[in-house]
Amino acid sequence: MPHDKKNTRGSDLPHIVIIGCGFGGIQAAKALHGKACRITLIDRTNHHLFQPLLYQVATAGLASPAIAAPIRHIFRKQANVCVLLNEVDRIDVREERVFFRDNTPLAYDALIVATGASHSYFGRDDWATHAPGLKTLSDAMIIRQRMLQAFELAELRAFERPDTPQPSLNFVVIGAGPTGVEMAGTFAEIARHTLKREFRHIDPSQARVLLLEGGPKVLASFSDDLSAKAMTQLQALGVDVMLNARVTDVRSGLVQVAHTAPGAAPCNELITSDCTVWAAGVQASSLGQCLGVALDRAGRVPVTAQLAVDGLPAVFVIGDLAAATSNGKHVPGVSPAAKQMGRVAAHNALASIEGRPLKAFEYVDYGSLATIGRKSAIAQIGPVKLSGLPAWLFWLFVHIFFLIGFKNRLLVMAEWAWSYVTLARSARVYWRSDSADR
Amino acid sequence: MPHDKKNTRGSDLPHIVIIGCGFGGIQAAKALHGKACRITLIDRTNHHLFQPLLYQVATAGLASPAIAAPIRHIFRKQANVCVLLNEVDRIDVREERVFFRDNTPLAYDALIVATGASHSYFGRDDWATHAPGLKTLSDAMIIRQRMLQAFELAELRAFERPDTPQPSLNFVVIGAGPTGVEMAGTFAEIARHTLKREFRHIDPSQARVLLLEGGPKVLASFSDDLSAKAMTQLQALGVDVMLNARVTDVRSGLVQVAHTAPGAAPCNELITSDCTVWAAGVQASSLGQCLGVALDRAGRVPVTAQLAVDGLPAVFVIGDLAAATSNGKHVPGVSPAAKQMGRVAAHNALASIEGRPLKAFEYVDYGSLATIGRKSAIAQIGPVKLSGLPAWLFWLFVHIFFLIGFKNRLLVMAEWAWSYVTLARSARVYWRSDSADR
Repeated sequence: MPHDKKNTRGSDLPHIVIIGCGFGGIQAAKALHGKACRITLIDRTNHHLFQPLLYQVATAGLASPAIAAPIRHIFRKQANVCVLLNEVDRIDVREERVFFRDNTPLAYDALIVATGASHSYFGRDDWATHAPGLKTLSDAMIIRQRMLQAFELAELRAFERPDTPQPSLNFVVIGAGPTGVEMAGTFAEIARHTLKREFRHIDPSQARVLLLEGGPKVLASFSDDLSAKAMTQLQALGVDVMLNARVTDVRSGLVQVAHTAPGAAPCNELITSDCTVWAAGVQASSLGQCLGVALDRAGRVPVTAQLAVDGLPAVFVIGDLAAATSNGKHVPGVSPAAKQMGRVAAHNALASIEGRPLKAFEYVDYGSLATIGRKSAIAQIGPVKLSGLPAWLFWLFVHIFFLIGFKNRLLVMAEWAWSYVTLARSARVYWRSDSADR
Repeated sequence: MPHDKKNTRGSDLPHIVIIGCGFGGIQAAKALHGKACRITLIDRTNHHLFQPLLYQVATAGLASPAIAAPIRHIFRKQANVCVLLNEVDRIDVREERVFFRDNTPLAYDALIVATGASHSYFGRDDWATHAPGLKTLSDAMIIRQRMLQAFELAELRAFERPDTPQPSLNFVVIGAGPTGVEMAGTFAEIARHTLKREFRHIDPSQARVLLLEGGPKVLASFSDDLSAKAMTQLQALGVDVMLNARVTDVRSGLVQVAHTAPGAAPCNELITSDCTVWAAGVQASSLGQCLGVALDRAGRVPVTAQLAVDGLPAVFVIGDLAAATSNGKHVPGVSPAAKQMGRVAAHNALASIEGRPLKAFEYVDYGSLATIGRKSAIAQIGPVKLSGLPAWLFWLFVHIFFLIGFKNRLLVMAEWAWSYVTLARSARVYWRSDSADR
């Protein structure tokens, strides 16, 4: 059996295994640049995804390669990193080995688990087909196809029935967190601006964009006044926001909602939907279940101040999979936090092998940002609160700055500059995955 | 029933139906700009594809949206065009109606059929799964995924068996026409240059790229001396060209070849393949069978000098679906020919309705071009023959010039300039189409 024993690969250097190439995993591997260790970096896709802009791929504003960098390419000059495209099935913490799906084991001296989170349908996984979430490029391509197809099908129906009124065209986004707000705002812009003059039998601006939120406000993690400003900006874009609207069923073309506003009588509503997007819940990666500790409600792994797992000094958990605290507060599931954890976990992984003291993780909060649409956003940076155009310009700057890879940054900037001037979207293309069908 | 009678849509203008939005169909619709007619333009995808650069999408050099323009967007300012995303199932030439897949009829006053061609496996359609062809974006994404996966799987195998020699890694391209030559040349460049330093357990430059050609030369439509130059350039790029090698079977991971060089004893060879691409045969669209005339061997429709079908004065056939002649010579299946036919068919369609005289089609041959790889190409422009860097620069200029849409042109140029300097490829990204699997 290969890799069954420690350090068998022609080197006595300590072996650090990192699972997951999101912001946390990538940063952990980078932090070990030049260190005396072997790193095996494992992901089930071939790319690192700049997830904050994934909604732009889903809404046809950017092509997939603009926000995805091949992991191998990122680490081509870091000789101590070996990238493997594979899927880890389970972790044996007692034997200190991970197992791939084909049951091949891989021993580690220290392990960093950074496998993040995916959508949660609160036990209703049958909703997934009708209301895809947005975590991967594959998800984004499905949503892009459904969005574009909804307009095409409406035109086709109107063409075939010229003497009837325009068929209804509803886009329903479930959940008013950052992703839901971005998606709803962009759908509204596309219907009102991008597609102007392109259809002959329907008026795309008559499409209705609904944003359903179970709680009493949008962007609940922000202060009440910023949340209220976001609400105003959404409405100005033409989004129909329903607060206290709990989704009780999702079927093909239909979303059922229970209105639960305090003080009002509860009532149910059945909404037809031509394109439904799920942005309501996340569930941490199932690999957390292998670590032998009690998980929190969202499936996250509680970690020590050093980001280790209680009782497992060589196992570190970071990013959206970790339930970490800093200065007595929960660390939010955002990319700056994942990156910061990555750097600390990398240090601690090597230190734990070499018997050196570990660092405690301290989260540095640079602020919060959420974008709503072109020229609309809200931001809280320390005591400073921004909204509207200034917040949007700040958001634009931050996102272009952090996009991995110099070329991507330039290209994305060019695409955006273009779409800002013309209101066009450059990636309004989809194709069926089944070539035989074509 | 809608559209069952002529000109029922609130207008007495003549109705011209165009099926297919390749170079021919797009050009035909554009040629009718400002004319007193209603045009219905039908395609089963939402985009017009710049097919000459499709091999760049398949080999991860360009993102899909860079070579695909939404058809609707192209015609947003041409008010007499109505674009329909739909699939025509059959044509009733006696009743002058086309039928969609759901059996909805659409009457026409004149019809232009421009549905092109797809791969032909010479009756062995079971080969399609193992050796995809390259006609659509969907095809390109399948090939891109298989190409990138082949390298990833080789690395994984080498990682798991560190003490064995590097596993073989074969890319097999079947057919040495323009597409086959482009694909083989680019595969060789990727293996030798793009992936340098990115793998730790395999040497990608050890990959073997085989180009199998049943006939005695590559790029058979060119003169013998240019074809020989292309052969030399392919070999310089590291492509293993096998001439007189007829494929007799294609299975998962295997290609069987019969060597039939004149003078030598025939023999069979079984070649393992980690990524197989079919570029050997084309078959015209099956809609040609609805027109009641005898088709040629490739399924093409013989057309009159006016591009009409014998006995059907209101039906015109153009592009790869048409078996047209000009000055006694067959018109080749290339994009300039399709565009020229599109313009003539548009004129004749309207003239046939209005009872005016029709134009005869005369093909203007601007020359032939084939690219082999970076800095390698061959070109024949009138009496001038070019090869190597001058031919490649000419190819680059022509292709950027003709890319539809100003923005695409700029972006594609930027991508190319970048990849020319860095040898990197910007779209090395794939994703599974099934999100549940992720």
